[in-house]
Amino acid sequence: MEIKITKNSNPAVKPTDESKLGFGKVFTDHMFVMLWDKGIGWHDAEIVPFGDLSISPASSVLHYGAEIFEGLKAYRRADGGVQLFRPRENFLRMNRSAVRMGLPELDVDFAIEALKKLIEIDADWVPYSEGTSLYIRPFMIGDDAKLGVHGSSHVRFLIILSPSGSYYPGGLTPVKIMIEDEDVRAVRGGTGEAKCGGNYGASVRAGDRAEEKGYSQVLWLDGVERKYIEEVGAMNVMFKINGQIVTPMLNGSILPGITRKSILELLRAEGKEPVERRISAEELIEAAQNGTLEEAWGCGTAAVVSPVGVLSYKGVDYEIGGGKIGETSQELYDKLTGIQWGRAEDKFGWICPV
Amino acid sequence: MEIKITKNSNPAVKPTDESKLGFGKVFTDHMFVMLWDKGIGWHDAEIVPFGDLSISPASSVLHYGAEIFEGLKAYRRADGGVQLFRPRENFLRMNRSAVRMGLPELDVDFAIEALKKLIEIDADWVPYSEGTSLYIRPFMIGDDAKLGVHGSSHVRFLIILSPSGSYYPGGLTPVKIMIEDEDVRAVRGGTGEAKCGGNYGASVRAGDRAEEKGYSQVLWLDGVERKYIEEVGAMNVMFKINGQIVTPMLNGSILPGITRKSILELLRAEGKEPVERRISAEELIEAAQNGTLEEAWGCGTAAVVSPVGVLSYKGVDYEIGGGKIGETSQELYDKLTGIQWGRAEDKFGWICPV
Repeated sequence: MEIKITKNSNPAVKPTDESKLGFGKVFTDHMFVMLWDKGIGWHDAEIVPFGDLSISPASSVLHYGAEIFEGLKAYRRADGGVQLFRPRENFLRMNRSAVRMGLPELDVDFAIEALKKLIEIDADWVPYSEGTSLYIRPFMIGDDAKLGVHGSSHVRFLIILSPSGSYYPGGLTPVKIMIEDEDVRAVRGGTGEAKCGGNYGASVRAGDRAEEKGYSQVLWLDGVERKYIEEVGAMNVMFKINGQIVTPMLNGSILPGITRKSILELLRAEGKEPVERRISAEELIEAAQNGTLEEAWGCGTAAVVSPVGVLSYKGVDYEIGGGKIGETSQELYDKLTGIQWGRAEDKFGWICPV
Repeated sequence: MEIKITKNSNPAVKPTDESKLGFGKVFTDHMFVMLWDKGIGWHDAEIVPFGDLSISPASSVLHYGAEIFEGLKAYRRADGGVQLFRPRENFLRMNRSAVRMGLPELDVDFAIEALKKLIEIDADWVPYSEGTSLYIRPFMIGDDAKLGVHGSSHVRFLIILSPSGSYYPGGLTPVKIMIEDEDVRAVRGGTGEAKCGGNYGASVRAGDRAEEKGYSQVLWLDGVERKYIEEVGAMNVMFKINGQIVTPMLNGSILPGITRKSILELLRAEGKEPVERRISAEELIEAAQNGTLEEAWGCGTAAVVSPVGVLSYKGVDYEIGGGKIGETSQELYDKLTGIQWGRAEDKFGWICPV
């Protein structure tokens, strides 16, 4: 399919102070839009000026959560070039999300081509400072303007781009998190492994409550037994217990993170043996108490690796690794960001130059 | 707050054949819109011509499921007047949904006033034929145009109206339903008791699959044990087992339906003793096998009462009440619709004239 391009005749002034970008607040001059209709398939692929969408007040995306998304980044290399990290993984996951939510699948190769074309046009928006990147948000919305509840017959797929600041302007910093024992984010058989709006809508109350109490994220428990660790905020989570790296196994309610997958592959390539298994809150607290919980970190596209210094459970704070950044957390952060920003060799074929 | 009114200068032609209205496909000439901003509260209440909304592609409603809604109806009485059924209950529930989803609460009295004003303006759109009604869809969307995941700081509340056909153009008809044992709609601690988009997004795949197999709805099991009945499609569900009316107890993952509540109140006012308790799929199947499952019906705003003639579980169809409409189903349908359309006395104070 050809991509029709309409350049923005009124481009925005780019932010000059990259230290003030924040996350997902500023958008580039263009966006990619493509339509799908039942019986027709995908059509009208276009790159157009970034701007508001015209949506019927009866559209299914506004009522029935017909929405899935992805998040990835474009990185500015030292030589000025721009590169992506495993974009194919994102579009493959988007297709799995689509199947769960009654939305159509994408042609993955075409989606990557469209993304590259869009980034080429807005290449000047990829920031240059240490730790900054161009955050990429592909998303798909159901757009049936009728109130019956069904899979979608009219769909839009879009990609928007947001130059974003460093997640750690002052360097990697450990955060405080708390185990959430009231709200549940997702359950096996539900939509937890799909990257869909409903999972995030379900999580904001607990996240905001945790922030009010001084914690930066909640650690989610499983929806069935309220016993096993699932994710931290909107990231996957890993622990180093007694020298061994463990992470919750994918069980249907955990998002199969691409950073998670990359860390596991990286560790295995180094001959280490990370374990994917069920991890109970009780086990974690016991390990924190007897000193074998050496490290904990969240992992996801935005933060890459987010070390946890304090874990709170039922009102008690437990310090992890003396509240400092653990050796493994730092190492994984350095290795992954090294590959992402092109400072280190990519032995895995993860990099996709634009 | 004053409601600013801008009349539609280009009103649509009303559908002349009310038998072809369907559900939620046609919309009236006007809609109600009101904005909310953190630190300011609700403001700019307006009735404006029905039309597309302008929404940022970064808006939280398109990514993070920041959306809740309600559904109720306005009924045309024989004397030509128009009346609502328990609108306060809908806005009270919307406020509970709002709390769960990080959205602001409404002033319930003002919301009812705004709804009445809107219906007055579009009163000619309330259809006249037997069983038809004006379906009312209040909804609230988070509209923060940034990609961080938080409770909403900018919100829109809208009401749209849709003249809708009779749910049963050929009279009350029993449907076939199947117990869903793969997908889960909601779980305790999640968002099941909130009327939010995510619950519906999670349900479309199973609903569409059931339709392909010839069933009109799925019967949802609980997300924890996958054992207990929760809802049928997007309705609550009731059974008559051995002369006793039973319905799943509200447990946090079941929507507290207003039709459900009204039926329970109606039965109790008649001295009957409906029971709210856990009902397992096994119990139902056993009752279907030994002939004590006398009736089953869904209940909700759209259908009022939807009798179930066939229940399918693990590939086996079980007939209920000889596949015919049960006595209690028919009685409840007649009593409730009698009150709703103004044909019967309203002893409960449920009716709100417009």
